[in-house]
Amino acid sequence: MANLGEFEFIAQLLQGPAAQGQPFYRHPLALGIGDDAALIPPLGPQEQLAVASDMLIEGRHYFADCDPRSLGHKVLAVNLSDLAAMGARPLAFTLSAGLREIRRPWIESFLDGMLSLARESQCPLIGGDTTAVGEQAPEVFSVTALGVVQAGTALRRDGLRPGDDLWVSGHLGDAAFALAQKINDPKLNCPQPRLALGLGLVGLASAAIDISDGLQSELMHLLNGAQNRAAQPQRLQANLNWQKLPLGPLVKQAIQAGRLMPPQAAGIAITGGDEYELLFGASPRERIHLQALGEQLSLALTRIGSVDSSDRPVVCWRDASGQPPPEILQDMIARGGFRHF
Amino acid sequence: MANLGEFEFIAQLLQGPAAQGQPFYRHPLALGIGDDAALIPPLGPQEQLAVASDMLIEGRHYFADCDPRSLGHKVLAVNLSDLAAMGARPLAFTLSAGLREIRRPWIESFLDGMLSLARESQCPLIGGDTTAVGEQAPEVFSVTALGVVQAGTALRRDGLRPGDDLWVSGHLGDAAFALAQKINDPKLNCPQPRLALGLGLVGLASAAIDISDGLQSELMHLLNGAQNRAAQPQRLQANLNWQKLPLGPLVKQAIQAGRLMPPQAAGIAITGGDEYELLFGASPRERIHLQALGEQLSLALTRIGSVDSSDRPVVCWRDASGQPPPEILQDMIARGGFRHF
Repeated sequence: MANLGEFEFIAQLLQGPAAQGQPFYRHPLALGIGDDAALIPPLGPQEQLAVASDMLIEGRHYFADCDPRSLGHKVLAVNLSDLAAMGARPLAFTLSAGLREIRRPWIESFLDGMLSLARESQCPLIGGDTTAVGEQAPEVFSVTALGVVQAGTALRRDGLRPGDDLWVSGHLGDAAFALAQKINDPKLNCPQPRLALGLGLVGLASAAIDISDGLQSELMHLLNGAQNRAAQPQRLQANLNWQKLPLGPLVKQAIQAGRLMPPQAAGIAITGGDEYELLFGASPRERIHLQALGEQLSLALTRIGSVDSSDRPVVCWRDASGQPPPEILQDMIARGGFRHF
Repeated sequence: MANLGEFEFIAQLLQGPAAQGQPFYRHPLALGIGDDAALIPPLGPQEQLAVASDMLIEGRHYFADCDPRSLGHKVLAVNLSDLAAMGARPLAFTLSAGLREIRRPWIESFLDGMLSLARESQCPLIGGDTTAVGEQAPEVFSVTALGVVQAGTALRRDGLRPGDDLWVSGHLGDAAFALAQKINDPKLNCPQPRLALGLGLVGLASAAIDISDGLQSELMHLLNGAQNRAAQPQRLQANLNWQKLPLGPLVKQAIQAGRLMPPQAAGIAITGGDEYELLFGASPRERIHLQALGEQLSLALTRIGSVDSSDRPVVCWRDASGQPPPEILQDMIARGGFRHF
């Protein structure tokens, strides 16, 4: 049969790779897919549970004709990226899917992409829900990812201090540019959650966030976090050089080919969503450790600016000579990052 | 403004009842809504984590013109019902919502219904996601509920033993009848998750499941669970008297008014979904304890049958004189419970 019923689909999951002893952080599962709820064995006495949920909707976050294997990867990756931004180690995840129908080769590719990343990340699928949407309705995937972090060590959004450097992992701009140009690009299709980086930043970074909605928007979250924290709230200004942003190879090529001016490329890097890199703050004392961490992980870590005390939380872009950005870039920043509504 | 942006909506949640010290099982939250992930403090050394996810889709699980307060209640209730069926105590939950737009009075009523049940159940909202679906698309809500259970005590689906009684809580049929007749009924609109019953059944019940897809379907899950368990798998037959099912007041009224024949009413009770009562098995030795538990909780607990060894897992309905059900009821059972695809 080309189409499977819900219960057969669940039975297939039960007999599939999800159940066949995926590597699991420390313990085997107490109880996996198939009961009213999954059971996870007791954690360590100092381990906090980190919980993140993200929903992806067809036509909004991905196109109906996209590669199902990449989509399965991405649905899990965006949630693992949230765990990475907390410095948490993945524990397990649930998947709820609203589908028009269960198309066997499509769903198998989807699960293959999702469960490959799950295995790599030692984060087994432990349960969820499948339900039918209407024949004309967009499909929808909702994941909740669970992770663990030692109490008191999580990378929060609200820890920036005056004088901290601002850093970003990897490179920026390619995901948004690929989306706008309808180019198949691994950065857009198969984002790599920065889990090892997140774990490595514990004890080094003062604050961290993942770039899902755009660098500018995430910078504001960090500044607002510092302003609103309970202990020693501080108004901070971020000072950054738009010419020092690490641009992705796709965007760089477009500049070389004359299809993008450098300020436009920077605008894409500053406002583009779906990057899933980590933006983090750290004391200048940690520069040498962060350089070593980047080398150890073979991952570019770029110092893109710093924060100082201010009378209001504001992101201030300049060039190397201290001049404000050209108008085209100012316009792009003013239009802002991705907003869902 | 009638409509709020996503970030304003999240900010409203942050300042709303979700953040204002909702009663929380034992500890305050380490970190609530607003960061990349929520943080839950360490659990006890013998506490397992129970994880359940359910998704509700407009037009499939509820109607667009339904009461938003009831809907908010129900979206959480169906997930808490899964925790109840495990004998787990609620810990916290996440909500992901795909909305056409954020309509202020509607979403406030929705949250009011959801968070009232959350407070009653000591299960705070700790995070999630909001995203836009297309203008013509159905709205969708996805919840993941977390609970805790002492290691080794969870009420699983696979524990039935030959000779066990079969029990059901509350009454059956009203939810399915109200849905079919488009009647506003509390059983359909505001199901009460049987959390206190689930906790009370720990140590008494051999197996439990909540009735979301229909009694017949859930009975088969229990029989298949016993057949497929790792330790001492057993083929069991369920023997039940359809005339002894506890029917809801709406269905009883319909019988009295001559709008339903008793076998039709039983058919609705046997195949109707959305009941969110608990079906459980227990040794006959526990009858006196279960009677006391029902009295303590002011909740009807009805012994509807028993299980015996068999050559195949099968559900066998009879009447008081041992005769098979009338054809009309046999037909309803054969057509089966709710299937999503």
